[in-house]
Parts: sequence; C-alpha cells; structure tokens
Amino acid sequence: VARITLLTDFGTADGYVAAMKGVLAAEAPLAAVDDAAHDIPPGDIAAGAWTLVRYGTLYPPGSVHVVVIDPGVGSERRALAAEIAGRFYVAPDNGVLSGVLDNASNVRLVAIRNPAAMRSGISRTFHGRDIFAPAAAWLARGESLEGLGPAVSDPVLLKLPQPSRVDGAVVGEVVHVDRFGNLITNIPEAWAARADLRVQVEGRDAGPLRAIYGDVAPGQVLALIGSAAMLEIAVRDGSAAAVLEVGRGSRVVVAPVEKRRLA
Amino acid sequence: VARITLLTDFGTADGYVAAMKGVLAAEAPLAAVDDAAHDIPPGDIAAGAWTLVRYGTLYPPGSVHVVVIDPGVGSERRALAAEIAGRFYVAPDNGVLSGVLDNASNVRLVAIRNPAAMRSGISRTFHGRDIFAPAAAWLARGESLEGLGPAVSDPVLLKLPQPSRVDGAVVGEVVHVDRFGNLITNIPEAWAARADLRVQVEGRDAGPLRAIYGDVAPGQVLALIGSAAMLEIAVRDGSAAAVLEVGRGSRVVVAPVEKRRLA
Amino acid sequence: VARITLLTDFGTADGYVAAMKGVLAAEAPLAAVDDAAHDIPPGDIAAGAWTLVRYGTLYPPGSVHVVVIDPGVGSERRALAAEIAGRFYVAPDNGVLSGVLDNASNVRLVAIRNPAAMRSGISRTFHGRDIFAPAAAWLARGESLEGLGPAVSDPVLLKLPQPSRVDGAVVGEVVHVDRFGNLITNIPEAWAARADLRVQVEGRDAGPLRAIYGDVAPGQVLALIGSAAMLEIAVRDGSAAAVLEVGRGSRVVVAPVEKRRLA
Repeated sequence: VARITLLTDFGTADGYVAAMKGVLAAEAPLAAVDDAAHDIPPGDIAAGAWTLVRYGTLYPPGSVHVVVIDPGVGSERRALAAEIAGRFYVAPDNGVLSGVLDNASNVRLVAIRNPAAMRSGISRTFHGRDIFAPAAAWLARGESLEGLGPAVSDPVLLKLPQPSRVDGAVVGEVVHVDRFGNLITNIPEAWAARADLRVQVEGRDAGPLRAIYGDVAPGQVLALIGSAAMLEIAVRDGSAAAVLEVGRGSRVVVAPVEKRRLA
Repeated sequence: VARITLLTDFGTADGYVAAMKGVLAAEAPLAAVDDAAHDIPPGDIAAGAWTLVRYGTLYPPGSVHVVVIDPGVGSERRALAAEIAGRFYVAPDNGVLSGVLDNASNVRLVAIRNPAAMRSGISRTFHGRDIFAPAAAWLARGESLEGLGPAVSDPVLLKLPQPSRVDGAVVGEVVHVDRFGNLITNIPEAWAARADLRVQVEGRDAGPLRAIYGDVAPGQVLALIGSAAMLEIAVRDGSAAAVLEVGRGSRVVVAPVEKRRLA
Repeated sequence: VARITLLTDFGTADGYVAAMKGVLAAEAPLAAVDDAAHDIPPGDIAAGAWTLVRYGTLYPPGSVHVVVIDPGVGSERRALAAEIAGRFYVAPDNGVLSGVLDNASNVRLVAIRNPAAMRSGISRTFHGRDIFAPAAAWLARGESLEGLGPAVSDPVLLKLPQPSRVDGAVVGEVVHVDRFGNLITNIPEAWAARADLRVQVEGRDAGPLRAIYGDVAPGQVLALIGSAAMLEIAVRDGSAAAVLEVGRGSRVVVAPVEKRRLA
C-alpha cells in the first residue's frame, strides 16, 4: 500500500485540502494519506522547499509526496512529477523541489501532460485538485512516472543561500525560523563544531557552541546543532526570533574570538 | 473499507477531535479517517456548509462525512444522518447540510434516535463524541441509515444568498473569503463570462473577467472564475480581502460598462 | 493493525511532525496514524497532559499514544514508554503523562534505552523523530514494552490542582480554557450538582448550575457540566474567557447563596 503525503499553503478551513483528499480517496482508495502541513505561509516557495527536506527521505521508497505551493497556478509553469531515490514527488515547477533535488542523484523528472492522469475540466486556479492529486493517485496505483508525460531536464531551482568562509570565519544566514522561534542556519555542523569559535547573529553574541538547551539558563540565547545537523540559534524555553528580533535572511557569523569584528 | 471525514469548529488542541477519532477507532476500526478541517470559525454554520460542498461529492460513494459545528448542542435540535447521491452525512440539524442538500435528488434523511448507535451516558455539550462519531461508525460498518432513526422531511436549511439580474446587470455577493483573501461570490460562471462586462465590489472596479492570476501585475486586483466555477475577486500574490477591505456579504456587480452606476 | 496517535507542540509547518510520520511509515508501515493535536502551546506540559486524558482511553486497547511536548529534550530527562489499561504511551518523563497515570491501576512503565529501538545518530533536539516515533513503531509492531528498557517506578508527576471543601463551599480552579473560551474547572459533577448552589469565578457570579447552553440568552454567562463530567463556565454563543477576562488558574467557588462571601 502506497503512502501519500500532502504539503500545501492552503490552510484547511476552505476545503481545498479536503477536495484533494476526496480525489485521492476516489482514485487511489487503498493509499494511506498523511498530512505533512497546510500552514506554509501563502506562496512561500522557499519555506515549502525547506520543510519538504525534513521528511521526504524519512518516508520509505514508493511513497508519494505532493507539494502544492503554487502562486503561478494557471500560468505556463509546468506541473512536475519526479522520482528521487525511490520516492515520488508531485509539484509545480517553481522551485519548491529545490531542496530535495539539491545534490540528488538517481533523479527522473517529467512534466505532467497526460490528460488520462488529470481530472476532466481542469480549473485555472486549483491544480492541487485537478492535476497534482490525480497524478499522485496515478503513481500510488503503481502506474509509471513516464506515463505522466515527457522527461524534463531543466526544473526551476531556487538559489539556496550558501555559507562561505571569509578570513577564517564562517558567514551564513538564517534560512528558517520554526514555531519555537529557533533560528536555523545554512551552516553545517562540520563548519561550526570547534571549541574556540563563537556565534554571532546580526552582530549579537550567541556564545560558543553548546550541546543542549539545558547548557544555559532559561531565557538565555545559545547556539547548538539542530536536528538537521545545521547550526541553530535558540533561546532556552523561549523564542530566539523574538528575543533577538531577527528572522530569515539574518546574517550569522561563526568565528574565533579575535575575528568577531567581522560580524 | 469506508472512509470517514471530519469537519468541525473544534480546533485540535483541546482533544475534542481526538476524542471523536478514538470513538471511531474503537467502533469502526477498519475505516480510514481523514481530517477535512477543524478551524471553521466557532459556530459559523454557513462557513461549514460552504466548505462541505467543496469536497463532499469528490469522495467516492460509501464515504461518511461527519460535520460538527453545533452551537445548539444539548438543545432540542435534532441530530441528522443523510444519504445523498451515495455518500453519507452526519450532522446537527442546524443548516450545515444546506449546501449539499441544495438541488440534491436521491436524498434519504433520518433523525438519529437509536440508543444502540450512541455512546451510553450522553453529555450535554459534546455530541460529536457521543452521537455523531458513533453514528458515523455505524454507517461505516455498513449498518443501515434507517436503523439510526425515523425519516425526516423538514431539515433546517440556511437561506443561501442568491444572485439576481437587475436591469441588464448581475448583482450578487461575496459568500466566502479564503485563506488567500480571495473573495468568492455566488455568481456562477455562466452569468459572468462575457467579454463586455466589468466586475465591481462595493462600488470599486475589479476590471473585466480575466483567465488567470498572471493576467495582471503582482498586487493588482482581478476577477476570474475560481475552482468552484463561481466568480472570484483576487489580488495577484496578495489578498483581495485586505486590499479592498471587504468580506462576506459584500455586494458584487457584473455589468456592461454603461451600467456601472448600479454598483 | 495498530493505531498510533500523535500529540505535540510542534505545529506542522516546520516538518517536524511529518518527519515523525515518515519514521512511522518506514518502521510500522501497517499502522494507521491519527493526528491528535500539534498546536499545544510550546512547552506547555500541563496542557498536553490535560488533552491526552480527553482521548487516551477512548481509543481501543493496543493503540499507541505518542506525546512529544519536550522542553527538556537533550537533557538527562528519561524517555518513557507505558502500558496503562491496555493502551501504550510514549513520552518524555516530564509529567505529561500525569493525567493518564493519575489513579491508574494496571500500569507498566519503562525507560526507553534499547538502541535497537532508536534511530542511529540521535540528535540532541529532536527525540520525537529519533526516539519516540521509533519506540511507537516498535510497540505498534507488537514488540514488547520490556524490550524497550528497564522498569521505572518514579515517573515525574505534575501536582494537579485539587478542589477542596471549605466551610460548606467547594473551591476549585480553572484548569483549561478551550477554543470556545469555555472555562473548564477541576470540580467534578458530583461536587457541583445541587440546586441551591451558585457558581462564582474570581468573585463574579455565574449563576446556578444549568443543563445546556440554551438555558440562558445568547451572550450570557452560565455554569454547566461539560463533556469531561467537570464543572464548566461558558458564555452562550461566546467566550467566557473573553467576557470574564479570566484563564487557567482562576479561582472558582461553588457555594450556597449565603456562602458567597467566600469567593
């Protein structure tokens, strides 16, 4: 039995997600459907790309991940279906697959064009119901990726911000702020894990790298390695985003003490 | 295997929805349960009725749709179970089924009265757990609609606002505002789709009918046909509700240019 | 087929819940997974404990309830697995199981220690993915509770506020405020159900005990017995929390008229 996940910016109250689930129930009745999230900020493709990476490969091969964050719906943007390392992905061609395509090998990618894999009478505003859910059902039933449409070799990719090494320091940025106000950076563990380094966010000191929240007092800022093996800045029992008043895009510097002027 | 959907105004944090799921797991262990939405505004029967129409018939026949938006819980209002075009619905008799009953043929409707289909010790405040979930499990197990109670012929129906034709123009109103701030009207595609017409919302011009969001610049207002085949007013990459400062009940006029004084 | 429920304070947008679901899909592919709630206020252990009681025992024996509200993640706090009256619970040892452990007999409790029941490379910040979801999968597959680790006899328990009888009156407090603004108290039905009593919240009169919301006019405050068989204070078609400007911890007195000075 295939498992299908749904990631959207639809919220749930309007029934758009339920409409997709109805299509899946009708067209892939044996599949199990998991809600990933529906509260991605409206149109925030980068946020969706980030979230998808958190769970995509934790699901077993054969799973089908549907992503509908689609501000360009109705335009000429393509609808994509992909197989990456044995999992399937269905999404608009707007960069939302950037995270899972990044550094991936073993990728097959097609544009969804086969009318037999779509609902009849496709709307101009709701391809989640009319194209993406039917395509997911198609894959969940075990029909072929290639049957959905022609191969694609040039998917839209977001330019994901990369950390850099500058004069002995590492300069990165906040790429995600989570519900707890944790500031998740694009600086990997291997670049940050050295005892003589200190972390700064927009010029404010976050101290040396700590192991756990409990290493500082409640309310204090700390830097640690988060669950994605990236440097995070947090506040114990609080919100680093609120305390430091920073957000996505904020500059993060990891440097030996004597390099702190860089921040 | 039957599929059961849940639509409520309960939110999830209080455990009321989970309590209903527990009852379903105990009494219909083979059924699959889909969350439709739990963030309908508290007590907003019209919003629930609107949302239910978005997905009710997309589910396959045999599905059981549970709707618990129930400000009159504990009073003499009846608990209903219905079969409409092969799908089952379980809900309080307060109008929340109006949308799916509207123009429906092939309707069977009963009042839930059979104690064998309820939990023992029914509370005065939580019929979702004590009456509606058990009734849904009853139907999902394949037991009969008539077994739940006596036939009903006079369900409570909301007076849904209808568009009208006035002196060559169409006058309707906003019936739903979605998460994106799209203003969804009660004017059907067939009444709005003519090239010489312009759309106005509370006297403000929304232009002629467009095909897709991409037909205007970001931030601009446009009118288009939405996924329910009704006229919608939107802002590309933005919220029409916020930009135009209008909401449910706002007046919408579709008229030839020379009739615009009607608005 | 086992059923697994998830209760967290993670929200959904960050993908943490989806990551747990991915682990469950990989490690217990036949289990059905229900979302209980993910919008518990961040770190609010008491709220989680309260919510869990609402549904824990409504699920059938063999169900596995996962609770991850875990501000102490990464510290020395233990990870617990329990069997209580035939249902399984997996949670951090921080008191979040207090409600279901309270007055429970037939409890087996272990500390999760077996590396074979965990993901390899456990993070310091996300035991939901690395420890709790794998342990839930372990139990859902029918493997033994004792196989997870050694027995525990001293779980952390919250000091749940208890009502008291004072000079002929009952004094309790608000222990939960739900989405509707209902004030749920720790005063059981048997202590409040007497015709000559009146209810007060922080010194403000909520009247005698009523049967249903419909017993007062819209907008009026009333006291009634809620779905947990506890005294609740509500406002018909409104929010008691907003109208009375009170919340969790507020003092509630049930007293004969002549005792009202107690409040």
